[in-house]
Formats: sequence, C-alpha cells, structure tokens
Amino acid sequence: MSYPHNSVVILGLGLIGGSLARSLRATGFSERITAWGHREPSLARGVELGIIDSYSLDLEEAIVGADIIVVATPTLTAAQMLNTLLPLLPADGSLSVEGSSSAEGSGPVLTDVASVKGSLRDAVVTERGSMPAKLILGHPIAGSERSGVEASSVDLFQYHRVILTPEPDSDPQALDLITRMWDSTGADVVSMSVAQHDAVLAATSHLPHVLAYALVDALAQSEVSEDIFRFAAGGFRDFTRIASSDPTMWKDISIANRQALLEAIDSFDTHLQTLRAAIAAEDADALMNTFTRAKESRDRFTALLAARKSSQD
Amino acid sequence: MSYPHNSVVILGLGLIGGSLARSLRATGFSERITAWGHREPSLARGVELGIIDSYSLDLEEAIVGADIIVVATPTLTAAQMLNTLLPLLPADGSLSVEGSSSAEGSGPVLTDVASVKGSLRDAVVTERGSMPAKLILGHPIAGSERSGVEASSVDLFQYHRVILTPEPDSDPQALDLITRMWDSTGADVVSMSVAQHDAVLAATSHLPHVLAYALVDALAQSEVSEDIFRFAAGGFRDFTRIASSDPTMWKDISIANRQALLEAIDSFDTHLQTLRAAIAAEDADALMNTFTRAKESRDRFTALLAARKSSQD
Repeated sequence: MSYPHNSVVILGLGLIGGSLARSLRATGFSERITAWGHREPSLARGVELGIIDSYSLDLEEAIVGADIIVVATPTLTAAQMLNTLLPLLPADGSLSVEGSSSAEGSGPVLTDVASVKGSLRDAVVTERGSMPAKLILGHPIAGSERSGVEASSVDLFQYHRVILTPEPDSDPQALDLITRMWDSTGADVVSMSVAQHDAVLAATSHLPHVLAYALVDALAQSEVSEDIFRFAAGGFRDFTRIASSDPTMWKDISIANRQALLEAIDSFDTHLQTLRAAIAAEDADALMNTFTRAKESRDRFTALLAARKSSQD
Repeated sequence: MSYPHNSVVILGLGLIGGSLARSLRATGFSERITAWGHREPSLARGVELGIIDSYSLDLEEAIVGADIIVVATPTLTAAQMLNTLLPLLPADGSLSVEGSSSAEGSGPVLTDVASVKGSLRDAVVTERGSMPAKLILGHPIAGSERSGVEASSVDLFQYHRVILTPEPDSDPQALDLITRMWDSTGADVVSMSVAQHDAVLAATSHLPHVLAYALVDALAQSEVSEDIFRFAAGGFRDFTRIASSDPTMWKDISIANRQALLEAIDSFDTHLQTLRAAIAAEDADALMNTFTRAKESRDRFTALLAARKSSQD
C-alpha cells in the first residue's frame, strides 16, 4: 500500500515552493495544499492567488494532518529548518502526526529543495544521530532570475530534472511518494548519491557561477573597465548572465558545497593553466586539440538537450 | 575633397566579407563590388547570389581600379595577405593603382576585419618599416556560429560596434572613408588605439572563450562527466555556448593576441584565487561583497545594452 498524499504542507512559499503548490494544484495531486512561513504578506498573497488553501505562521499548527512536508526555505536555512521540524514529528515510522491521514504509525514523508545535499545531511545526522527513513532529500534543477511567490509558475519544473538523494536505509515507499509528487509536475525525476549530486552541481552550476562572478569582478576593476562594458558583445552577455544571480543565495551555496566546489575550482584551474602555457608557448597543436575536444563535448551537450526536449514534446 | 568609393574589392568572401558586400550593395555605397579568393566555388556563389558583381582568382587583377580594398581573410592569414598586397600598391599616397578612379596619386584605401590588431601592425611594420598612411586597421564586432558566404547577411553589422585603430600618422581622409563605409552598414563606428583594442577584446571576448573551452574540457575529462552533461541546466548552456566556436579561429586569435590574453588570464586567475580562499575560509562577508559588486557591474552592463539598443530603434 502506498502512502497517501491528500495534504501537502510547504514550508517557505517563494519561487520554488509557490511553483510546486501551483503545479500540485493544477494536476490535482493533493486535495489540500497549505503553507507555513515567516512573512505573512507572502502567505496571504498565496491564498489570494489560489495557490494554497490556507496558511499558518505557527510551525506545529501548520504541519497537523500533513502527508508530505516540503522544506522549501533557502539553502542555508534548510538545515536549521529540518532540525527544528524533526523533533515535532514522531520518530521515524513509529507514530503518526495527530490528525494525519497517513497510514497508522507512519507519519508524514519529508523532503526539501535545497541546492546542496551533503551539508544538509551532515547537519541532520549531527543533530539526530542518523537520517530519518522518511526524509528524502531532493533538488529540483529549476529556477528563475526572479524570486518570490509572485514569480512562481505552474510549469517551472516541466522538462526539468529533479534529483533525489535517498540513503541506503531510506523508506522505499517514501521515495516512491516524493518521486510521484515531482513526476506530477512534469519533471524528470532521477536518484543519485548525495556525493554525486554535490559533485555534479559543483561542476555544472556552482563553479560556472563562481567563474562568472570572478570574471565580471576582474573586468570591473581593470583599467579598461569602461570600454570593456561598452564594447562587449553577445558572447560576453551570455557568458556573464549568471553573474546577475542573487549574491546571498550564491554565498550560501558556495559555503554549503564548499568541499566539492573547491575541488571543481582546482580541477578547472589546472586546465586553465595548461591552456595558458600552450598560449604562452604559441603551441598551436595543443590549443587546437583542446579547443576541438571541448567543442565536441559542447556540441554533444547541445544534441543531448535537443533530444531530451524533443522526447518530451 | 573626400576619396571616392565607387569600387570596393573584398579579399576573402566568407561570413564577414559576404555580409559587408551585401550591405554595401543594399545601401548603394559602391557602384561596383568585386572579390578575390582562393576558392572559386565561394566566389561564383557570391555572383550567383548577386552579392558581388564579379571576381578574380588573381590578386593583381582583382585590385585594378579599387577605391577601397578590404582584407577579409581569417585573422592569422590577414598579416600575410597584407604583406602580399602592399608591394602591389603604390607607395603611400604617391601613385594610383592603374585604372583607379581615386584622386590622382592617392591609390586605394586599405582596411581589414581581423580580431587582433597588434600582431597585424607588427607584421606590416616588420616587413615595410612603417604603417602605410592609407591602411586603416579595423574590427567589426559581429559574427555568427555559422561561417561562409552562404551564412552572410545584409544586417550582420547593424547595431554592432566596429572598432577602427588609426595610427598617429594615418591619412585622415582614409579614416573618414572607412568610417563612412561601416556607418553605411548600420554599425556604430569608434576609434581607439591598437593596444586598447587588443586589451578590451582580450577581456571581453578572448578570455571568456578560453575560460569556456577550459571549463568544458575539464568537465568532459572528470569522473562524473556523463552526469555533468545530463544534469546541466540553462545557466550552464549559456555559459558554455561559446565553447562551440570554431577551434581554428580561436587557436589563431589566442596566438595572435597572446600578450594581452595572458595578462587577462592572469588578472582573472588572481580574482579566482581570492574567491577560492574566501570559500575555503567560509568568509561569508568577502563572498557577499564580491558577488554583490559583480552583480552590480553585470546589471549596469545589461542596462547599458538596453539603452544602446533602444537608442538605435
């Protein structure tokens, strides 16, 4: 018997939490969608927009009757949020939350949306000794340059990946439930280990952001900075777009995924120094080999994206 | 009296040369547009498409009667092209090319479109002792992922910058003529020194390309490379798009602009190492300061681009 999902409680109604609520409402995945948060205006706006049924500013009250609880607070506060939340719940699988429609003795299934998983798991294990079996960490790879519930959209997750990072002793039914929840939003759900998630995200997202910030900052402080921005063209615009991302969020992510990010920076820097040496030596063959190999990889990525998109049309 | 521009000869009919021909034809800037090149099929196709009036595979024959000669061959061959071309012309301003409609004794005005200017000037000065007064080096900041005359377009230069790098003893009328030629294509023409051009282009274009190639190559060789490309999202796609650029062209540019590029790489690397240290030390304030400063610069750039575009609409 699979776990029920009549009631979903979203903790933090921003871009991600709001978009999830919109999507679960649109597909009818849950009968009841409610939210908790610190800022009443955002929550009231969520009710006004029809995104959630109701809200509470009191965490204990908010989670009464929950089948699924989604921690959708920012990355750096997710650990604290989980460690505040877990003591309010029954020990893993032994008791149900008062009024829950979940199977007797099962309690709600928990998940989150934070961009880094290792630091979150460590924080929970440090506090509680082990990972609760019904806590399935997850990360929807979706976002927007805008933030807040007003920017939320029903199709934010469509065609996007959601990575879940279950542990060896995670509850398989809990994993199944969170998988089905994200499936219903149109996302492509995959599972991998926490370490793999953090390494992949460091490489594909966190490192590029650090490089873009470093480049724009270096140029802004150069002697020719005025001309740099006057004469920059399309390639530069695309390359530096992510340097316009929210500094607070990226400061948090950089620290939370510190270890994997430092490894990614060092690996990148080794390759950059090799290229630098080839340029200094005017080694045309070495440059040609590296650029050609990189272009082939990038072209494969383009083809892969095109195939993924068309298979979902 | 300004120099005539009845006859424009384009050496190398690729994306840039072909687009320039289309544009000059559309605006009626020149009565006669002809071309020279190594590959007859491209030139014949140019005539077929109505882009040029005629062509020659013989350089001496091709430049007879030229008012303007545009060297539009690739960056690395531009120097050799100029040094082959210059001996065929009269000494600066002393003689006219046979049959030229130029003012008696003036000879044609020369320009080019290469991405790097310093190495080109050095090659000419080494060969000839000085820069000819009627050679005005230039660089249209425009391009496409496609190449060849088939990819050329009449509006490639519209709303784009063209940088000219006249020397202190350049002929003012020659500079005026080349300025007006690019003006007629809808481009925004500006002048700066060769050194400034090469520094600005190293920072805004050549360095980002090297970083994108280094990143994609580093990721392709990592242990998680398969997952990296599977789970990469929009930010990564934009950030690495330029790694799909033509390896031959970027190998040439990297070597031609070696000195300015090495300085740009080192300046970038200093900033990256500072950020790395802040991440390693979990220095939230330092990260926040740098990311915020970079975001502000990038946002100013976005505003500047928007203003530039709207002023031209």
